[in-house]
Amino acid sequence: MAFPVAIIGATGYTGGELLRLLVHHPTARVVFVGSRSNHGQPISDFQPHVAGLIDLPLEPVDPDVIASRCRLAFLAVPRGAAMDLAGELVARDVKVIDLGTDFRFKDQAVYKQWYGLDHTRPDVLEEAVYGLTELFRQQVAQARVVGNPGCYPTATSLAIAPLAAAGKLKLDDVAVTAMSGVSGAGRDPKAMYHLPHATENVQPYGVASHRHTPEIEMVLSSFGKGSATVSFTPHLVPMSRGILSTCILTPSETVSAEEVQELYDSFYEGEPFVRVLPQDGPLPHTKAVLGSNRCDVAVRVDPRSGKVIALAAIDNLVKGAAGQAIQNMNVMMGWDETAGLRLPAVYP
Amino acid sequence: MAFPVAIIGATGYTGGELLRLLVHHPTARVVFVGSRSNHGQPISDFQPHVAGLIDLPLEPVDPDVIASRCRLAFLAVPRGAAMDLAGELVARDVKVIDLGTDFRFKDQAVYKQWYGLDHTRPDVLEEAVYGLTELFRQQVAQARVVGNPGCYPTATSLAIAPLAAAGKLKLDDVAVTAMSGVSGAGRDPKAMYHLPHATENVQPYGVASHRHTPEIEMVLSSFGKGSATVSFTPHLVPMSRGILSTCILTPSETVSAEEVQELYDSFYEGEPFVRVLPQDGPLPHTKAVLGSNRCDVAVRVDPRSGKVIALAAIDNLVKGAAGQAIQNMNVMMGWDETAGLRLPAVYP
Amino acid sequence: MAFPVAIIGATGYTGGELLRLLVHHPTARVVFVGSRSNHGQPISDFQPHVAGLIDLPLEPVDPDVIASRCRLAFLAVPRGAAMDLAGELVARDVKVIDLGTDFRFKDQAVYKQWYGLDHTRPDVLEEAVYGLTELFRQQVAQARVVGNPGCYPTATSLAIAPLAAAGKLKLDDVAVTAMSGVSGAGRDPKAMYHLPHATENVQPYGVASHRHTPEIEMVLSSFGKGSATVSFTPHLVPMSRGILSTCILTPSETVSAEEVQELYDSFYEGEPFVRVLPQDGPLPHTKAVLGSNRCDVAVRVDPRSGKVIALAAIDNLVKGAAGQAIQNMNVMMGWDETAGLRLPAVYP
Amino acid sequence: MAFPVAIIGATGYTGGELLRLLVHHPTARVVFVGSRSNHGQPISDFQPHVAGLIDLPLEPVDPDVIASRCRLAFLAVPRGAAMDLAGELVARDVKVIDLGTDFRFKDQAVYKQWYGLDHTRPDVLEEAVYGLTELFRQQVAQARVVGNPGCYPTATSLAIAPLAAAGKLKLDDVAVTAMSGVSGAGRDPKAMYHLPHATENVQPYGVASHRHTPEIEMVLSSFGKGSATVSFTPHLVPMSRGILSTCILTPSETVSAEEVQELYDSFYEGEPFVRVLPQDGPLPHTKAVLGSNRCDVAVRVDPRSGKVIALAAIDNLVKGAAGQAIQNMNVMMGWDETAGLRLPAVYP
Repeated sequence: MAFPVAIIGATGYTGGELLRLLVHHPTARVVFVGSRSNHGQPISDFQPHVAGLIDLPLEPVDPDVIASRCRLAFLAVPRGAAMDLAGELVARDVKVIDLGTDFRFKDQAVYKQWYGLDHTRPDVLEEAVYGLTELFRQQVAQARVVGNPGCYPTATSLAIAPLAAAGKLKLDDVAVTAMSGVSGAGRDPKAMYHLPHATENVQPYGVASHRHTPEIEMVLSSFGKGSATVSFTPHLVPMSRGILSTCILTPSETVSAEEVQELYDSFYEGEPFVRVLPQDGPLPHTKAVLGSNRCDVAVRVDPRSGKVIALAAIDNLVKGAAGQAIQNMNVMMGWDETAGLRLPAVYP
Repeated sequence: MAFPVAIIGATGYTGGELLRLLVHHPTARVVFVGSRSNHGQPISDFQPHVAGLIDLPLEPVDPDVIASRCRLAFLAVPRGAAMDLAGELVARDVKVIDLGTDFRFKDQAVYKQWYGLDHTRPDVLEEAVYGLTELFRQQVAQARVVGNPGCYPTATSLAIAPLAAAGKLKLDDVAVTAMSGVSGAGRDPKAMYHLPHATENVQPYGVASHRHTPEIEMVLSSFGKGSATVSFTPHLVPMSRGILSTCILTPSETVSAEEVQELYDSFYEGEPFVRVLPQDGPLPHTKAVLGSNRCDVAVRVDPRSGKVIALAAIDNLVKGAAGQAIQNMNVMMGWDETAGLRLPAVYP
Repeated sequence: MAFPVAIIGATGYTGGELLRLLVHHPTARVVFVGSRSNHGQPISDFQPHVAGLIDLPLEPVDPDVIASRCRLAFLAVPRGAAMDLAGELVARDVKVIDLGTDFRFKDQAVYKQWYGLDHTRPDVLEEAVYGLTELFRQQVAQARVVGNPGCYPTATSLAIAPLAAAGKLKLDDVAVTAMSGVSGAGRDPKAMYHLPHATENVQPYGVASHRHTPEIEMVLSSFGKGSATVSFTPHLVPMSRGILSTCILTPSETVSAEEVQELYDSFYEGEPFVRVLPQDGPLPHTKAVLGSNRCDVAVRVDPRSGKVIALAAIDNLVKGAAGQAIQNMNVMMGWDETAGLRLPAVYP
Repeated sequence: MAFPVAIIGATGYTGGELLRLLVHHPTARVVFVGSRSNHGQPISDFQPHVAGLIDLPLEPVDPDVIASRCRLAFLAVPRGAAMDLAGELVARDVKVIDLGTDFRFKDQAVYKQWYGLDHTRPDVLEEAVYGLTELFRQQVAQARVVGNPGCYPTATSLAIAPLAAAGKLKLDDVAVTAMSGVSGAGRDPKAMYHLPHATENVQPYGVASHRHTPEIEMVLSSFGKGSATVSFTPHLVPMSRGILSTCILTPSETVSAEEVQELYDSFYEGEPFVRVLPQDGPLPHTKAVLGSNRCDVAVRVDPRSGKVIALAAIDNLVKGAAGQAIQNMNVMMGWDETAGLRLPAVYP
C-alpha cells in the first residue's frame, strides 16, 4: 500500500526534483503539495516535467490537513520557515525531512552566527538528525526529524570522510574549492544567474564567508580529535546541475596512493550510492552523475607537495538535496535504501 | 519473468540511452551487449552512467549466441550493418528494432538515392514496419522488425500529422526548420562538435540535402492524397540533447486557431507521450522534455500570412531514438505501452 | 580632433556594446553617458569590460547639457522614451541615432498597431531614416535622425534583399525562422533567461506575433511590387550572442544555384561588412561573426521543393545594434564607413 | 612604417588569436603565416574571423624566407618544434616569442623531467627570458628570445606575486585550483572536449601531475627565500575561454585584509593590464575579461582558517597566450606596452 507523503514548497527546484524522483518510488506517493500561494493551481503549471505523472493542486500549508493525509513531509521552504512547521508536524506524528538549514546545526550559536536566526523550536532541534546518510545512517534510522545536508557539504564530506575517519587528516588545514551549477541558487532570476552574464563565466562567490563552511566543519569534527577548520571557496560555473568538490588535504602522516585508495575503498565498501574510482581510471566529473543519486569519489596523493587531493562529484539537486532526502526517508522507514533511487545518470 | 533483450552497438550514445531506460523497465532485461571491439570489457567503461546498475561485458555480435539468450534485439549500428544482421536474427526468431536507417524506407530506390546503399535483405525490409508509434501503432503491434524513426522525422511528423490527417495541409508546401543538440551527431569527436567551436554557436547544416527529408516526406505522404514535398533545414545549437521542430505550414483551406487546436487535441487524445499545449499557454521547449519520452506539441495560426505554425519538442535520444524503440517493443509485445517510460523530464 | 558623442541609456547591454566599440573609433569619443538613475557613479560599475578605458560618471539626461558637449547622441532607451528626446536633441543640432523602435516605422499606424504607442513627434519621424546601412546608405548619409534596425530585421533583410531586389521573390510567401542568443532580451533577469532554465533549452517565442515582423515586411516591401507578408518565428537558444536567420523563400520564377549565387555576390560586391559565402563552402554560423560587425550570408536552392533558402549570421549586439549604429554614424558624418569597426570576430 | 612579423603555426587557436589581436596593432603587421601543411591556402580558410582583414596564404616554415621578410616571429608550434627554429631565427636577427614550452624553463632538468624532452639549443635557452611581463619586464625589454608563459601560470602567478614578493607567503604550502575554458586544450577534437560530453560538466584533470605546476613554482621561487612547492588542480568547465585561478595561501605571518589589499594595490599600481579589485566589490570572474588582455585580481583574508585566498581571472587565449605575447613584443621593441591591446572585454 502506498505511503502518503507531502512536499511543502513544491514550486521550487528542490520541490520539483522531489516530485521527479518520487514518481519512481515503489512505496511513497506524493498526495499533498503545499505552497504559500497559487492554491488550487495544478503543480504541473510550475513543474511541467511531471505533467501527466503527478497532477495535484497546490494547497495551503495546514499541519492538520497534512497530518490527516500524510505520514511524512519533505520541507523545501525558506530558512526559518521550517522550524515551527516541523514542530507542528512531529507533534501530529508526521515525520519530517527538512531540506533547508533549520535542522542541520545542533549548536544554536553556530546557526545564529552564520544565519542570523534564533531557533524557535530547540526541542525539535534536539532530536533532529543530520542526514548525510552514509555517515550517520544509524541515527537517521531512528529519527523523526532529519536535517538534510547542503549540497556542498554532501560532496565535500563524502570526499574527505574516509581520511578523517582514519585519523589521518590534519583537521585544521582543510582547503576546499568547489564548482556548482546554477540550479543550486534556486529558481529566482537574478543578475548573477542571467544567462548572458552567467554563460562563458566562472564566478567565485562567498569567499571566506560561505554558509556551508560551518556545516562542513561540523561533519569533519565529528570524526576527529578536536575541531576542524575549513577554508571553503565555491564557484558558479555555466551549467544547470552538478557539484565538483576539490579538497586539498594535509595528511597527519605521510600516506601512499595505495594506502589512501585502500582506505577509501573499504570505507565505502557496499555503499550503493558512492563509487570510489580507482587510481588508474577517470576522475569524477559531474556529468557522469547528472540526474542520479550517485557520488563519484577519487583520491590522489601528490608526493611533491605532500598533499592529498580528494574529489567528489554529485548532482546538487539529487544527492545534494532531493535524492538524499528520499534516501533518508528509506532509511527512516526501514525500506531498501535504494528504493526509487536506482536511476542511472542522464548521459550525455 | 524477465524478458531478455540484446543491445547491439552498446557503446554509442543511442546504446547508452537504451541501457539507461531499460534499467527502469519492469519486464525487459538487458542480458547481452554487443560491439565490434573491446570484447570482455565491462559496458560501464563506456557508459559510466549505468555503472553499478548494468555490468555486462561486451560480446561479439554472433546471431546464434544472441538467439540463444535473447528474444528481442535493439540494433544501434552504422547504416548498412543492420540489414543482414536483422535477417539473421528474425530467422532465429529474435524480434528486431533497428534504430538506424536500414529499415525505414520501403522504397529501396529512395534509400539508394539518399544513402547510396543497396538493400541486401529486401525480404526482411518487406515485412518491416516504420515505428513512429503514435502514427503506425497497429502495424507495429504485428511487426517482427521495426525501423525506428529518425529524431527529426519523429518531432516533425508529430507536429504536422494532425493537420495532414485532417486533409487540411497543402502537402507540397511544407517548410521545416529544426534545432538539435549535438548528441544527435553521435559520440565521435569532430571539429563541428568541438566545444570551443560549438558553444555560443548556431550552425545550420545539410541545407536542402539532409537525409531526414525523404523520411519526413514518406510519413506525410502516408496521410495525404498525393505525395509530400518538404523543405528541411536543421541547425546545431549549443546543447547536448533536445530537438525543436518548427514547421511553417500552408493549410489547404483557411483554418482558425480554435479549429486547429481542436484537431490536435482530438488527434492526440489519450496518447500517453504526446502533450498538446493549449493556445494560451507556454510553447514547447526542449528542456521540458529532456530525458523523457514525451513530445510536446503546439500549433498556432498566423492570420496575417495564412500560415499554420506547428512546433514539437522532444529529447532526440529518447522519443527521437531509444525511448521510442522501447515504446515500440512494448507495443510489439502487447505490454503496457508506457512500461519503463513513465519518466519525468529532468528539469532544470 | 575628437568628435564628442553621448550614449543615453548607457547601463544596458546595447549601451555597453556602444562603449566597447567606440573605444576603437579613431574620431568619435564618448564624453557623456546618460541614465535615469545612479547619477555620479562611474559607468564601469555597470560595464566592467571598459574599466580603465572609459571612466565617465553617469549623468542625468538633459538635452541642453548634451547639446553643449556632444554633436551626436546614441539613444538606447526604452520604447517611447526616444521620441521627445530625439526632438529636443535635433532641435539643438545634435544628430540622433535611436537604437530602439521609435523611429523605425514611417507608418504611425503600424507602430501603433504593433507597439501600442502614438508617436509624439511625427515631425521628427518624418525626417528619420531607417538605418539598415547596406540597403539605405544614401538616405542615411543625409539623415539627422536614424532609426537603427532591430537585430532580427537586420539579419533577415540582408539574407533576403538580393532576391527581393532582383524581383525574383514571391513577396507574399516569406517564411523566416531565427535563433537568437539571450542578450537580445536585455539585461533584466527573468525566468525565461535564468540559466538553469535557459541552458540546454531551445525556446520558441512570439510565434505569429513578434514585433519584428512588420519591420521585416517594411524592408522587403521597399524592394518589391506590392507589399510583403512574412511569417516569422524566433527562438532563444542557450548562448549569449548571435542571431542566425533562416529564410525559406519562394522564388517568383525558377532559379538555379549559380544564378542566385551570382545575384548575391554582385548585390553585396564591395560591401565591407557583408560576406557572401560560396556554394561549396561552409554555411554562416554565429560564432564566425561574434563580436564583429560582419554579416555572413549564404543562399541555397532546393530543386526538390523549389524553395530558395537564404541564411544570415550576425552578432545581435554588433551588426544587430551597436555596430550598425556606429556604421550609420560613419555614413552620416562622411567618414570611412568601417572606422572603428574593423574588428575581427572573437573565435573561438 | 609597419613592423613586419611572422606567425608560425597560424592555423591553431593561439595563432588565430595572434591574428585577431594584431589587426588592432598600430605598428606590427602580419606579413607571413607559416604552417606545416596546406601551403597556398588562405589563412581565412582556417581562421574565418579575420576574413577580409588578413588574407595571407599559408607558407612553408623556411627561416631564410622568414628572415628576409620579418623582424620578429611568434611561434605557436608543438613543444619540441620551437627549439631549433628559434635558433635559426635569432641567428638571422629575427626576434622570437615562443608561445609554447620550449623556452620557459632555464633548468633543463626540470624540462626533461616534466616534458620528457632534451633541449637541442641550450645556447638559445640561455639567453631566453620568461615573459610574464608584469613580473619580468626589465628582462623582457632586453630579450631577443622570450618564452611566453602558460595560461595557468600567468593567472596564478599574478594572483600570488604580491604576497610572495612581500615575503609574506609560506612558499611550501601553496594550494591552487583553477578552472579553464576548453579552448586551452587547442583545436583538436577529442572525447573530453566533445560538446555532448563537455557541456554541463566539470572535469578535473592532471591532478598532482599537470605540467604547469613546475612553471608556477619557478615563478614563485624567484620571489622567495627557498623554493616553492605548489599543489595544482585544474578543471575544465563548459565554456570556450577564460581561466579563474583560486589560490589558497598560507601567510608566513598573520595579515589583515587591509594590509594585503594595500600590498596588492601598490604592487600593481600603474599596471595597465592588471586590475586589483577592492575588498567590498565584486570578485574576479572570467566574463569581465573575455577577449581582453586584462587580469582581474582580488585577495581575501579568512580569519577563521588563517588562509589568504587570492583569485585571478584572465582570458586564456589573450593574457594567457597571444595578448601577453604582443605585450612582450611591445616591451622588447620599446613601444607603448598597451599598443594594440587596449581592447575592452566582450561582455556579455
